[in-house]
Amino acid sequence: MDERLKRQMDFALEIDKEKNIFRQTHLSGDGRNENDAEHAWHMAIMAYLLREYSNEEIDIGKVMLMCLIHDIVEIDAGDTYAYDEENLKTQKSREDAAKKRIFSILPDDQRDELMALFDEFEEFETPESKFAHAMDNVQPLMLNNSNGGKDWKVRGINSTQVYGRQSKTTLGSKKLFDEVVDVILKDHIKKGNIKE
Amino acid sequence: MDERLKRQMDFALEIDKEKNIFRQTHLSGDGRNENDAEHAWHMAIMAYLLREYSNEEIDIGKVMLMCLIHDIVEIDAGDTYAYDEENLKTQKSREDAAKKRIFSILPDDQRDELMALFDEFEEFETPESKFAHAMDNVQPLMLNNSNGGKDWKVRGINSTQVYGRQSKTTLGSKKLFDEVVDVILKDHIKKGNIKE
Repeated sequence: MDERLKRQMDFALEIDKEKNIFRQTHLSGDGRNENDAEHAWHMAIMAYLLREYSNEEIDIGKVMLMCLIHDIVEIDAGDTYAYDEENLKTQKSREDAAKKRIFSILPDDQRDELMALFDEFEEFETPESKFAHAMDNVQPLMLNNSNGGKDWKVRGINSTQVYGRQSKTTLGSKKLFDEVVDVILKDHIKKGNIKE
Repeated sequence: MDERLKRQMDFALEIDKEKNIFRQTHLSGDGRNENDAEHAWHMAIMAYLLREYSNEEIDIGKVMLMCLIHDIVEIDAGDTYAYDEENLKTQKSREDAAKKRIFSILPDDQRDELMALFDEFEEFETPESKFAHAMDNVQPLMLNNSNGGKDWKVRGINSTQVYGRQSKTTLGSKKLFDEVVDVILKDHIKKGNIKE
């Protein structure tokens, strides 16, 4: 096998580990915790199907690839829960080290490409990044809603925390924020699953 | 929420169930069985990174979407193991019924689009379908190889069976068949993990 192909296959095998990184979100039907690979798969399909609701014109292939790779760094850095203030402080440095190690398994051109795509997602500036972030928010919200808001309730999450995170969804898709996110959050606040 | 968005969100929630459909393949590191959503995620990333090895020019965005959705029917039809002759006989009728039920949750235009893409994958005629099938073969082979060929060994798989399935990989990528698949299979036949 030539060196280029070997590095590509080594990377493909390495990212298998993402299936062992579990998130706080539970699968529908009061299922087990979801892992990062499943979450990324779900986000990519949702991005494709909901792309008509992006605020701005987007390159959907780019958004999908961004969704698929955005959590690869968690193989080393672990999942950082969106409302875990302590771990959020060290998230960037942990993920930077992971990014270098993992993407460097690839041939240099693909390493540079995927690192740039990961950075673009993190920087939250391009239309593609904003829409991918909207998917990163809407997908777990949908699952949590399907389970009666249990993930919020168990952790005692309040409305300021949830809106702090979810308000960014509107930067990617005003329609999805107004008609999905906001409606669901108001309902769970009313029911007491999210504290006022 | 308008009717179109409601159907899209209902479909997005429905396909969450794919995470509960487990395959015969085990994760690397002698891990647990892999599920369909993880497998699809892995295939889509591999398709992107290995696209230069496709025999024919391909629309990579289409290949990735095909990879992501190709197992959705298994939510109803279950996973059919590649070497399970009995279940292979009823696979098509089970998957056809599943295809109709699940994709029909979507708005009509997206139902038609995804059904056509699923059919294109199954028909194995276009360059995109052939390359997606190559990923469908190479991805589990890579995992099984990383675990010392245990999935073949435990089930007593023989070389005729494995080459029967894997020889189709060459229709999507001669390079990946020659330099990855064939090399790995010969090694496991030699070691006795695959029967002659």
